[in-house]
Amino acid sequence: MVKTIELTNRQEQIVKIVKEEGPITGEKIAEKLNLTRATLRPDLAILTMSGFLDARPKVGYFYTGKKGNQLISEALKKMSVKDYKAMPVVIKEESSVYDAIVMMFLEDVGTLAVVNNRGTLAGVVSRKDLLKVAMGKQNLQDIPVSVIMTRMPNIITCHIDDPLIEVANILIQNQIDSVPVVRSIENGLEVIGRITKTTITKAFVELGIDKDV
Amino acid sequence: MVKTIELTNRQEQIVKIVKEEGPITGEKIAEKLNLTRATLRPDLAILTMSGFLDARPKVGYFYTGKKGNQLISEALKKMSVKDYKAMPVVIKEESSVYDAIVMMFLEDVGTLAVVNNRGTLAGVVSRKDLLKVAMGKQNLQDIPVSVIMTRMPNIITCHIDDPLIEVANILIQNQIDSVPVVRSIENGLEVIGRITKTTITKAFVELGIDKDV
Repeated sequence: MVKTIELTNRQEQIVKIVKEEGPITGEKIAEKLNLTRATLRPDLAILTMSGFLDARPKVGYFYTGKKGNQLISEALKKMSVKDYKAMPVVIKEESSVYDAIVMMFLEDVGTLAVVNNRGTLAGVVSRKDLLKVAMGKQNLQDIPVSVIMTRMPNIITCHIDDPLIEVANILIQNQIDSVPVVRSIENGLEVIGRITKTTITKAFVELGIDKDV
Repeated sequence: MVKTIELTNRQEQIVKIVKEEGPITGEKIAEKLNLTRATLRPDLAILTMSGFLDARPKVGYFYTGKKGNQLISEALKKMSVKDYKAMPVVIKEESSVYDAIVMMFLEDVGTLAVVNNRGTLAGVVSRKDLLKVAMGKQNLQDIPVSVIMTRMPNIITCHIDDPLIEVANILIQNQIDSVPVVRSIENGLEVIGRITKTTITKAFVELGIDKDV
């Protein structure tokens, strides 16, 4: 069960004091704020339990160096590809560019995984790749998709146990819309799903939905 | 300053007890768990300060009904379109489909906003729209983009102060890749930005980056 807390002004003041002067006893913090030790007790409890501060007997409170949002990011790191991946959409490498475009419209996806006759990943083809060819004067039924695809091993893939946030970062850093989720099998990689910017947008929306405790 | 906390097993037990039997005094909770009141004090402090439980003098603790992740979703609601929107990419409605495809490649975007000669929003055109036309046998230089665009008023737009999460939800619900950010001016809507699945993916990645307190 993960929850966010927003610090009160007083809690922020305490963090500031400990950051600047820690290790410092609870008594000294109370003094600085003109409050009693008892008044501060719940604040100090929440600050230590949430990981902002740590306390050592006979030494006092010190700042853990844990950064703000660190725990929000820890929650994000627990979201994995396994729980969010979409179904793979694959096409055989001998299919034509025309067939690829038709499949892309039928399945309403932006990227197709291309597989060879062993059923393993051979390449990927994007809406952009197809648009580029479609602008030419060639007959789209005569061009095999394998001619225009991005080819192995120049394909970025991900695995079922990868954190979703890492794959999101890969999409941004490489300016791509989609990454196939793969599993190693004999002679290659089997395509078992895909993570796209749509997947990430859905996960983002889901984060904002209040869930039952 | 927003931070997440993860409840300990003991804290989850307390929430469960209060949920089922609240209002209940701290003493009774301690009894049920075979612990002293003093041992429970920090747990009860964190549970009330994080909003899971509330306490009323002489009555005891009760469950607030605040749902898990409620505060994480409150943090998300503070992210607004203003802080994340990308630059608008616009094309004039008399431009050809060919020009639109070229602009899409040059700017590396998936959707263009189409404006009329008053400079206000007339339509939007997506990579998918362009791919559909490009498959035909027509000369792409002869077709104005206004013929194939989705036309006002059938366009979903958003405003600078909208929460990013709402726009993300609009993208998912309407199965679109992009929404123009607009401002009302005389005679129409001025395009001042765009929110795309890329924007949302970037925001998601940013959530996972540890920020300084």
